[in-house]
Formats: sequence, C-alpha cells, structure tokens
Amino acid sequence: MTDTPPGRDGLVDLLGVLAYAELTAFLRLAEDAARLAPTLTDRAALSDLAATEYAHFRLLRDRLTALGVDPEQAMAPFVAAFDDWHVQTTPSDWLEALVKAYVGTGIALDFYREAARHVDEADRALVDEVLADESTSEFAVERVRAALRENPKAGGRLALWARRLVGEALSQGQRVAAARPELAALLVGQDGEDLAEISRMFARLTEAHGKRMSALGLTPGP
Amino acid sequence: MTDTPPGRDGLVDLLGVLAYAELTAFLRLAEDAARLAPTLTDRAALSDLAATEYAHFRLLRDRLTALGVDPEQAMAPFVAAFDDWHVQTTPSDWLEALVKAYVGTGIALDFYREAARHVDEADRALVDEVLADESTSEFAVERVRAALRENPKAGGRLALWARRLVGEALSQGQRVAAARPELAALLVGQDGEDLAEISRMFARLTEAHGKRMSALGLTPGP
Repeated sequence: MTDTPPGRDGLVDLLGVLAYAELTAFLRLAEDAARLAPTLTDRAALSDLAATEYAHFRLLRDRLTALGVDPEQAMAPFVAAFDDWHVQTTPSDWLEALVKAYVGTGIALDFYREAARHVDEADRALVDEVLADESTSEFAVERVRAALRENPKAGGRLALWARRLVGEALSQGQRVAAARPELAALLVGQDGEDLAEISRMFARLTEAHGKRMSALGLTPGP
Repeated sequence: MTDTPPGRDGLVDLLGVLAYAELTAFLRLAEDAARLAPTLTDRAALSDLAATEYAHFRLLRDRLTALGVDPEQAMAPFVAAFDDWHVQTTPSDWLEALVKAYVGTGIALDFYREAARHVDEADRALVDEVLADESTSEFAVERVRAALRENPKAGGRLALWARRLVGEALSQGQRVAAARPELAALLVGQDGEDLAEISRMFARLTEAHGKRMSALGLTPGP
C-alpha cells in the first residue's frame, strides 16, 4: 500500500463502514415498519426514515466509486458486526422499534460528526449532507413521549432496551476497531495511542446518548 | 358528496391505491433485498428500486394531503388486496424476487399510464414524474437474462411464476374494482359501461406484459 496517500485505507474503511451501516439500517427499518407499525401513518413515518438512510447509503457508495474502490469490497469487513448487532437488537414491538430508530440513527450521526473532524474537505461535504437530515428521526421522539405519557411504566423497560442497544453497539464497535486499526486511528486522530483523545471521544458519545435518552423521556441509567 | 367536483372520489381512490401500492412495494422489495440478495451489490440494486418506490409514495401522499385528504384514509380500502397479493406472491429465491420486481413495477407503471389518460393536468405532472423513473428496474432484466444464459432450464419455472404474479394481480384487481366503482370508472373513462374501452385497456396491459416477458427472455405463456 506504499502508493496510496496516508490515511486512505482508513478513509475507505470509514466510507465502507458507514455505507454498510446505512444500507442495513434502511433494510431493518423497512422491516420494522412492515412488521410493527400500528397504523399506516406510522408505517409511512418509519419508512420515511428508512428512505433517508438509503439516500445516505447512495452518497457513500458513489463516493467510494469515485475513489476507484468497489463498494462491496469496502463494506465486506463490516457485514458480520452489523448483521450481528441487528440480530441481537431485533425490536419486539413498535416502541422498541422507535427507540432503536432514534438511538441507532443518533449513534450513526455521532460517528459522522467524529469522522468529520478527521477527513478532508471533499468528504466533509458528504458528512455535512448526511448531518443535514438529522431531523428525520424526531417523529420517533414524539411518539415515544406520547406513549410514556399514557403509560409511564413502559419507561423502565425502554430504558433497559436503550442500554442494551448501546451495549451491543459498543461490543461490536470494539470488535471492528480491533480488526481495522486504520479505521480506529482515523476516528481518534493519526495518533492511535492518544488516550486522552479517545477518552474525550467517549465522553462526547456518552453525552450525546444521554441527551437522546432525555429527549425520549427516559433516564440514561446507571 | 354533492359538494365535491365530479370524479373527485375516483381521483382520491386512484391516488390512494397507488400510494399504498408504492408503500407496500417499497417495504416488500426491501424485505426481498435483505432476505434473498446473493451479494451486497445485488442487495443495493434492489434497495435502490425500493427507495424509488418510496419516493413515489411520498409524491402521492403529498398530493393527497394537498387535496385535503388524510392519506391513511385514502389508502385504507386497498390494504387487504395488496397485502394478500404480496403474501400469495412471496418470492422463494433471488430470481423470483427479480421477476416480481420487474413485472410488479411494470404493472404499476401501466396503471399510471392508464390513469394519466383520465386525470387533470396537476395530477398528470405527478404521473409523468413517476414514469420518468421507469429505468430503475432494468437491472432486474440484465440479472435474469444472465441467469437464463447460464441455466436455460430455469425459464419454465420463472415463466410460470410470472403468470402467477399476473393472475393474482388480476384477481385482486377485480376485487378492488368491484368494491370501488368510482375508481374503476376513472380507469376506463366516465362511461363505466364502455366495454370497447375496457377491452382496449386489457389489450394494452396484456401487450405491455408480453413485452416485459420477452425482455426477461421468458415466453408469455399460453
């Protein structure tokens, strides 16, 4: 890999992991919409979020192609981690699907934000375009809050569910970081051993997750 | 309904049936992509078609809302027919999924074309926008033809499958037409009893289906 510019492997990994994340999110949200939505309006709202994820996938795939990279090859290293995450976090009802849509999309956007700190200008434009769609999962917040007003007892179960979503995401994330050191290096800067930077990143991710839990009306938990 | 302009009930039905057709096509194509695609590239290609269907759904829903109609109410009368059609035509492998994507999208586009003959200018613009996306299912033709070159014997099974798709569509279509006379009247002109026009419409639909079968490399059957 001596003829590739520094960081290119990491960038291809980053675009690849985000592309597969979006493609899978699209397919799983569509499945949840078909399987769990209680009304056609709800089904359409979750489908809308799914379609937005697909639009993001298309941007990422086109960027990979423009870089001369086969998108399928770029995504391949991340298939198992995401498929496993989705299998282990299959929602059992509509509220779980909504919490997953909001928390899952939120974590993905956090990664875009982290990535934006370390990529060049062309890729930052792509990241900005993705972040501009942030509002599309807000309907999930409204629906969950309304459900909790009617039935406050559901809060405990959903808070546990959200913790499980994040726990499984962290464990798959560690697996990916161990297998793809260039990607891990990109997210925490070129200096992989900068522990202070890694801990600042985790602080940012934890804070963002706590804000989402509060937005849903759930306590972030111990 | 004396305060609605003539044909409005039919138009709302038409937009409602197309909206639910697109929403369901989106969800089912996404499911087939997740369940049956042999490679990530194939999964992305069928997902692309699914996302296009979703974009059509959004146009139709927005048009219903602009007319002051609740999209959920407009779609409700058609839920059972489409859900039953999809249950009875669940593809068992990737080639069946491709044939269904191409034939199903084709039949939907035929209905847009028939509808375009009878709606006013504002709605014709919407129909034109949908028809402009026609090329998105062409990848299915390439994939099916390539598979038939490798294994010509699959042609018989897929031709039977396509016939079943159309047969089930016709039987659900008759059910819808019987339940929604205004919609049936819109598709064959205000004069519901114009049998010559109905038979011309069926001739056009049959011809279009035959062309699609030939494009796939399949014989239209007896």
